[in-house]
Amino acid sequence: MRYVYINGNFVEYSQATLHISDLGLRRGYAVFEFFRVLRGVAVFLEDHLERFARSAALLELEPPCGRERLEDLIRELIQLNALEQGGIQMLLTGGYSEDAFTPGRPNLIITPTPVSPPPAHLYQQGGKVILQQNQRELPEAKTTDYLMAVRLARRVRAEGATEVVYHDGKRVSEGGRSSLCLIKDGVLVTAREGVLPGITRKHLLEVARPLLPIEERPITLDELFAADEVLLTGATRQVMPITQIEDRPVGSGRVGPWAQKLMAAFQAHLEAYLERRSRPGPA
Amino acid sequence: MRYVYINGNFVEYSQATLHISDLGLRRGYAVFEFFRVLRGVAVFLEDHLERFARSAALLELEPPCGRERLEDLIRELIQLNALEQGGIQMLLTGGYSEDAFTPGRPNLIITPTPVSPPPAHLYQQGGKVILQQNQRELPEAKTTDYLMAVRLARRVRAEGATEVVYHDGKRVSEGGRSSLCLIKDGVLVTAREGVLPGITRKHLLEVARPLLPIEERPITLDELFAADEVLLTGATRQVMPITQIEDRPVGSGRVGPWAQKLMAAFQAHLEAYLERRSRPGPA
Repeated sequence: MRYVYINGNFVEYSQATLHISDLGLRRGYAVFEFFRVLRGVAVFLEDHLERFARSAALLELEPPCGRERLEDLIRELIQLNALEQGGIQMLLTGGYSEDAFTPGRPNLIITPTPVSPPPAHLYQQGGKVILQQNQRELPEAKTTDYLMAVRLARRVRAEGATEVVYHDGKRVSEGGRSSLCLIKDGVLVTAREGVLPGITRKHLLEVARPLLPIEERPITLDELFAADEVLLTGATRQVMPITQIEDRPVGSGRVGPWAQKLMAAFQAHLEAYLERRSRPGPA
Repeated sequence: MRYVYINGNFVEYSQATLHISDLGLRRGYAVFEFFRVLRGVAVFLEDHLERFARSAALLELEPPCGRERLEDLIRELIQLNALEQGGIQMLLTGGYSEDAFTPGRPNLIITPTPVSPPPAHLYQQGGKVILQQNQRELPEAKTTDYLMAVRLARRVRAEGATEVVYHDGKRVSEGGRSSLCLIKDGVLVTAREGVLPGITRKHLLEVARPLLPIEERPITLDELFAADEVLLTGATRQVMPITQIEDRPVGSGRVGPWAQKLMAAFQAHLEAYLERRSRPGPA
């Protein structure tokens, strides 16, 4: 039996419905958030709730409750579902709207979601990405705007790729469901503007900072093709080396030394986080 | 009592719900369509159903029934609601999705929607538009991607404008909920690519063709500012003259002769259509 939280109540998954006047459904007007649950711990929850609040502000939506109450609800949901490993999605929609255009009182949905971590060989041999000209609207907000990612999922699979990376014809921004970093001559480069502020990326940068210089600035397509190493980050894929872009190898075409170092450092960082959070008592 | 159609059934509006696993809600993956009902007639229904089918194909979604069945359902819905004047929205979503990402069997919703036609003075004195850099994803498909339009509605109102017009920093594409045409030196210009194929615009071009030359090609911001006249078209606003862009007047700042001629020609065209469709017997 799975439970989800909707507007103040925990309800059975099968009974979880919204009226069709919801503005998330009718006009794609909804904030989105997703995080992993590992060993019963909501991973990097503080960061996700902070981004959730920022995204809501960008859409001028007021969450029905504050940060602490959300944390409590999420812990309760994890307990109720005896959730050890998986993911949780949050939706804050524009609410029920009589004219199907003007936002009303937001609907809040928090729901466990199955997670299929990528296969291990992608971390050992690296993954492939395809490219697509596209720009999410309001890129700094995490919204339900996944039109292109869902539409291209079949092509991504058909081409043996793990992700699609968006660009505007000149500059590379981010993956359909991930952030992008590259390493060139021992410097880590990642975009700061026009992209989602990725939480996994934020933590990767934290562990990378003592190890190598970091530049947060626009990345051109040429730079991407000339990179020594490329990494994708995301809540589900964590830190994944990319060794092929369309038909071209990245660097040597093999997982590079920085990818190995950074994957290990991130794992240690995540372990320490889980360790800290699973201990009973005050944080 | 209002009735809506959902997946094979006519249900009361208040009872019309979808499960939260719907991909339109969760990932903004849904085709959208909207048309007016005037004197009980679904206006330009053939065109709207054709675009609906094209949008569905672009999203790789298969409508649960064909064109003729959809026409029957819409006529039935109009009768059931005794709908004389108003609008109807259609939604074809990515369906219920266990992993909240992979499309399932599409959900089809057809629902009457209240319509507030713009005030008469906008047609007599012309309206104002504001500008915003933005590009809808998959612009040729009509989807529920209205993130920017909903978000900017408050600013549009606050600035006394009637619409926001999108551009990419160089070229102008379309309005948040309308198509854009300009007239310069007796030539009507409107974009062909990177915009929604507007149905009202299509009918305006039909009535305009015998009256003046038409160029379907990209429009620059400079051209927009230098236009003699600007028009917005849409199912609700029909053909509306625009006399102000941000703080700058269009041409003389008054409704121009072409706007007056084209509004009249479109009205006559629409009247003839309604006349033809309201006659009983074979079309």
